[in-house]
Amino acid sequence: MERIESTQNKQVKEWKKLLTRKGRKKQNRYLVEGLHLVEEAMKSDAEIDVLVIREDKVTDYAYLYEEREIDAVEVTEEISSMLSDAVTEQGVLAVIKSQESPESLRGDKPVLMLDEVQDPGNLGTLIRTADAAGFEGVIIGKGSVDLFNPKALRSAQGSHFHLSIIHDDIETWISVFKDRGIPVYGTALDERAVSYRSIEPQEKFALIVGNEGNGVNPQILEQTDENLYIPIKGQAESLNVAIAASILMFSLYH
Amino acid sequence: MERIESTQNKQVKEWKKLLTRKGRKKQNRYLVEGLHLVEEAMKSDAEIDVLVIREDKVTDYAYLYEEREIDAVEVTEEISSMLSDAVTEQGVLAVIKSQESPESLRGDKPVLMLDEVQDPGNLGTLIRTADAAGFEGVIIGKGSVDLFNPKALRSAQGSHFHLSIIHDDIETWISVFKDRGIPVYGTALDERAVSYRSIEPQEKFALIVGNEGNGVNPQILEQTDENLYIPIKGQAESLNVAIAASILMFSLYH
Repeated sequence: MERIESTQNKQVKEWKKLLTRKGRKKQNRYLVEGLHLVEEAMKSDAEIDVLVIREDKVTDYAYLYEEREIDAVEVTEEISSMLSDAVTEQGVLAVIKSQESPESLRGDKPVLMLDEVQDPGNLGTLIRTADAAGFEGVIIGKGSVDLFNPKALRSAQGSHFHLSIIHDDIETWISVFKDRGIPVYGTALDERAVSYRSIEPQEKFALIVGNEGNGVNPQILEQTDENLYIPIKGQAESLNVAIAASILMFSLYH
Repeated sequence: MERIESTQNKQVKEWKKLLTRKGRKKQNRYLVEGLHLVEEAMKSDAEIDVLVIREDKVTDYAYLYEEREIDAVEVTEEISSMLSDAVTEQGVLAVIKSQESPESLRGDKPVLMLDEVQDPGNLGTLIRTADAAGFEGVIIGKGSVDLFNPKALRSAQGSHFHLSIIHDDIETWISVFKDRGIPVYGTALDERAVSYRSIEPQEKFALIVGNEGNGVNPQILEQTDENLYIPIKGQAESLNVAIAASILMFSLYH
């Protein structure tokens, strides 16, 4: 097993760049951190380049690379901490190839689309909940935080391995779904919207939720089949986007 | 208008203690921070001791204390920053008397009960969503983070001013609701639980959600009328507690 001790090592420098969106895009790779996510990666068909294990954890985590002949590298505490985004680092991370398969999004089951969702915790929770609700996939539109943001991955708790997730243009996909006869629902607060309770549960649809402050862009709402709202009974001004989307996902798809 | 310049000022030291649970309990006071929360406090019947305004904001925020004859104190940037928990401090906070009115929890509308919810962001989101769903109040059980935690208050976005919220023993309240003929629902993942979809919407009930890792305590689940679960279709292992509670609140109460 290779051991790296220098923070100036070329590979270490490349891995560190994966903590930024730019670096992830350039290398077409991302990092997942912590035992739970690494195990979820190994259970999935994700392409794992290498496991990076902190020196004091090599014995504990040997089963990870022994059982599937994955490359593993031992690193010092200093390097491990450089590559970690977490508050309490677990001493194991995986470098994974980013794969997007737009062709796997067929709309056979519901699809969630995210328009300029900015908070990584919200993005991750949306993906985790879409998984729990049995959705086929999630389309992350332009202007949203990216899936491979470390905090988004932590909040998603491995659900991004279970769904088809792509970063793509929402308006293009609205056309695709319409061509396939799949209804597209936006979410809005204005009076042209209809209460989600008037919509019967269905097998196939696309649901669009939007930015934390501004909701879904108006030009997108113009292209949907129907825009839904959640009636608010109390004095709260709005719902958190992940909460609102969850109520809709579980109500519209049984 | 009084101006305080010394970080050693006795009042400043007392206010700073309100950033801890112990200090809040001892003084029976808490801090809300930022314009939105201060305005929500002023719209409500909260008892505001004093507004603390950073020197460069005194003119901007003069309307706050002028319109209602509230005491206001000007402080230096250093003091303002000492009293702030936020990343981007807005230069205004209010010292508010904690008031709990158990008698206002009558169960005329649904009530949410929280058993050992530990994450302040979850607690705040639960309160915000209970408000939006039209609930009467929230009972925060022992072992939960407290409502007056700065991060909980931020996530609640002022909804704690709109509901009856108390910190009290959940088992006591289960008895109270049972005596009043109000059904009490727990949430669980085990097989004795029934799908929430089998429960018709109703006007009065109490709903208990639990700890992020362990759910509701078993001895509490034994005392409920029924325990509900949310069927999970995908491969996600669970739902975030605030997400799960929101799906239930909006499904059980229209």
